[in-house]
Amino acid sequence: MDYTKEYSQPTQSMKSSLIRELVASTRNIPGLISFAGGFPSPSTFPKDILSDLYSRVIIEEGMEVLQYGASEGDRQLKEELIKWEGYRGLTPEEMLITVGATNGIYYYAKTFINPGDVILCEAPSFLGSLVTFEAIGAEVHGIDMNGEGIDLEKLQSKITELRAAGKNIKFLYTIPDFQNPSGISMTLQRRKDLISLCEASQLPIMEDNPYSRLRFLNKPIATLYAIARKDFNNSNLVTEIVSFSKILGPGMRLAFVKGPADVISKMESWQQKINVTPDCVTQRVATRFLEKGFMTPHIKTICEFYKPFLNKMLSELDKNMPSCVTWTKPEGGIFVWLWLPENMSADELFVKAKDHKVTFIPGSKFYPTGQEKVNCLRLNFTFSSMQQIEEGIGRLGELIRSQID
Amino acid sequence: MDYTKEYSQPTQSMKSSLIRELVASTRNIPGLISFAGGFPSPSTFPKDILSDLYSRVIIEEGMEVLQYGASEGDRQLKEELIKWEGYRGLTPEEMLITVGATNGIYYYAKTFINPGDVILCEAPSFLGSLVTFEAIGAEVHGIDMNGEGIDLEKLQSKITELRAAGKNIKFLYTIPDFQNPSGISMTLQRRKDLISLCEASQLPIMEDNPYSRLRFLNKPIATLYAIARKDFNNSNLVTEIVSFSKILGPGMRLAFVKGPADVISKMESWQQKINVTPDCVTQRVATRFLEKGFMTPHIKTICEFYKPFLNKMLSELDKNMPSCVTWTKPEGGIFVWLWLPENMSADELFVKAKDHKVTFIPGSKFYPTGQEKVNCLRLNFTFSSMQQIEEGIGRLGELIRSQID
Repeated sequence: MDYTKEYSQPTQSMKSSLIRELVASTRNIPGLISFAGGFPSPSTFPKDILSDLYSRVIIEEGMEVLQYGASEGDRQLKEELIKWEGYRGLTPEEMLITVGATNGIYYYAKTFINPGDVILCEAPSFLGSLVTFEAIGAEVHGIDMNGEGIDLEKLQSKITELRAAGKNIKFLYTIPDFQNPSGISMTLQRRKDLISLCEASQLPIMEDNPYSRLRFLNKPIATLYAIARKDFNNSNLVTEIVSFSKILGPGMRLAFVKGPADVISKMESWQQKINVTPDCVTQRVATRFLEKGFMTPHIKTICEFYKPFLNKMLSELDKNMPSCVTWTKPEGGIFVWLWLPENMSADELFVKAKDHKVTFIPGSKFYPTGQEKVNCLRLNFTFSSMQQIEEGIGRLGELIRSQID
Repeated sequence: MDYTKEYSQPTQSMKSSLIRELVASTRNIPGLISFAGGFPSPSTFPKDILSDLYSRVIIEEGMEVLQYGASEGDRQLKEELIKWEGYRGLTPEEMLITVGATNGIYYYAKTFINPGDVILCEAPSFLGSLVTFEAIGAEVHGIDMNGEGIDLEKLQSKITELRAAGKNIKFLYTIPDFQNPSGISMTLQRRKDLISLCEASQLPIMEDNPYSRLRFLNKPIATLYAIARKDFNNSNLVTEIVSFSKILGPGMRLAFVKGPADVISKMESWQQKINVTPDCVTQRVATRFLEKGFMTPHIKTICEFYKPFLNKMLSELDKNMPSCVTWTKPEGGIFVWLWLPENMSADELFVKAKDHKVTFIPGSKFYPTGQEKVNCLRLNFTFSSMQQIEEGIGRLGELIRSQID
C-alpha cells in the first residue's frame, strides 16, 4: 500500500517541527551551550512529595482513579483549583481538565474554527499553538506588541480590515504573562483596554497562562479572565488555560481551562472523542498536592530557584551585547527576547553560532507563516547552569559583535 | 457574547452521547441492576504493584519522567512492548504511544479523513469510535457480521458500490477479538480472507484491539497485524491499536499503536499538536510493569477472575431466555450480544426494563447513523456480582417473555 496519496489535506500540508529540526542539527556538538529549549529545570520537580502522593493515591483511591473518569475532569481537582485560585462563584461547569495546555488550546480551536476562519495572536507567539491552529485550517494573523503588550491600535485596524474583507475572526489568542517567546507581560491597563476593545468588537479571547505563577519580582497582575469577571460585569469573553507544566512537571501532562459553561461543554465533547478523559491518577495526585497545601510553598521555592538565573542572564547580556542589541527584561517566566540590528538575521546567526558552540531559537520561527521577522531570537534561562549562562552569552555577544564590525 | 452561532460546523452538529443520556435516565433507581457499562472490575486493578512502581519511578527516574517526553512516546516502553508481544523486526519507528485507544483512533482518522471520505466498519461497532469518526466528518458505513466476523461478500460489494459512486474509502475499522458490542471473534480463516480482500482492494485496516488478552478459553487467534506481517509478505496494510484499559486500568489512559512507519510519523505529528506527549510518568510505570514481568501473570489473574462471570451470564441466559432469543457465546472480552425477535425493539424494552430494575444498552446505539437495527442489545458481565447477574438476567428474561406472550 502506498499511503502517500491517501493522507488528508491537513496531514499533507502539516509542517514538520522546524524547531525540532533546528535542535536536531545542534545535537552531538560537544560543549554546545543551548538556550534553545523551553524546559523547566528538573531541580524544581517536587519528587519526594509526588512519589509519596502517587503511592498513596493508588493504594487509597486506586479503585476509583484506575477506573474511567469523567470527560470534564476530576471533580475533586476542580474544587481544589477553585479554592487555590480563590474565585468566588466559579462553578465546576465552567472548568475543564485537559492533557496539558496544548490539548486545551486544540479543543478550544476545534470548538470554533472552520477552515479559513481567522485567529489573531501576538507577533511573535508560541510556535506550538501556531502550528496547531494552522493544522486545524485557521488563517493566523499576528499583531505586533510593544513593551506593554499587544498593540491595540494595530489590533483594532486588523479586526476592521479582516471583517471588511468578509473574514470570520473567531478569537484572539494571547499569552499576557511572561509571553512565549518575548517574555513581555501585558500591563494591567493594557489588559483592561484589550478587554474593552474585544467587548466592543465581540471578539472572544483565549488566554494562555503557563507562566503567571513564575513571577520573581513585584506583584502579580490579574489575568484577563479575572479582570473580565470582576471589572466587566462577569463578561464571558475570556477562556483561560492554565498549565501545570512549569509548576509541577510537564511529564504529568495536566492543565485546566476556565471559560463560559457552554464553551466548556463543547470542549468536553471534543475531549470525549479525542482522549475520553485526562489521566485520572495524575489528576488525583494534583488534587492532593493542592489540598495538602503543597502548591503555594512549592511555587515560592521555584521562583527563588529561577530568579538568580534570570538575573545572571540579564547581567551577562548587559556585559556582553553591543549597544545596537536590545532585549526584554522580564520579571519572571522562562524566556528573554533579543532584538538584533535591523539588517542582521538570526537565522544566519544560528548557523554561525553552532561553530561558536552556543545555540538559541531564531525569532522567525515564532511568527505566523508569511509574517516572519528575522532580526530577533529567543533565549531560555531555566535549563542552563550559571556558568553556562556566563559562557554562552559571552560567546553569543562575541559572535554578534563580530558580525557588526 | 452569544457563542451559539460561533461554533464550528462539526461542533454544531456533534451529537451528545446517547449512552450517557440513557445511563443518566437510569441513575437513582434504587436496586437497579446494570449491564450497561463497559467498565472493567476494579477488583482486577493491580493496586499494590502500581503503588510501588509509581513511587519508585518518581524517586528514581523523576528528573526524566516529570520532564517533557518524546511525542512518539517513551522509547523504553516501546522496547518492553516489542519484547512482550514477541515481534521480530518490529522497530520503535513503527510504534506510537497514545493517551488511550480512542486517542490513537482519532489520530489515525485525522491522518486520512477529509470531510466526506468513507470509513467502513462492522455493524454493530464501538459507539465511541463511531462518534469520533462522525465528528471528523467521515461518512461511516457498517458491514454486517456473522458468527465468524465481518461478512466479506457484503464488504466486497460495499467497496465496489461506493467506489463506483466516486467515494473515497479511506479504511476499514474492525475489532477482531471479542468485538464491542457483539462479543464476536473473527476466525483465523476470516482474518486471512479479510486481509486478502483488503490487499486486492488496497484498503487499509485499522485494527482496534482492547480485548484480545481477555481470553478465558482456548488459544489466542493471531491479530490482523501479526497475520499481515507474517503471512502476507510483511504487508503494511494493518495498523493495530492496543489498549491498556482492560489489562491495567482505564484511568491510566494508555494505549499503543503499531503500523507502517510513515503512517506512525503522521500520527505523531498530530500528537504533537493535540497532546504533545502522553503522560510520561504513566508510560514509565507501564514500562516497569512489563519489564519486571508482572504483565503475564496479571493477565492470567484477570482472566481467571472474569471467566466465572461470563459463564454465569451465559448459563443464566440459557435458563431464562425464551427460545426466540439468541445471543453470542464469547470466550472472553467483556460483552454478550443478544438478538430479540425481529419485531421486538430493544429501545422500547429499555424503557420497560427500568421498571423491572434492570438495564442494558439498546443495540441501535451501536450502528452508524441511519443504519440502526433495533432488535438487539448489549450486556456487560465484568461489572456485576454473581448475584446481580442471576437476578438481573432473571428480570430481563421475565420481561422479554411478557412481551412475547
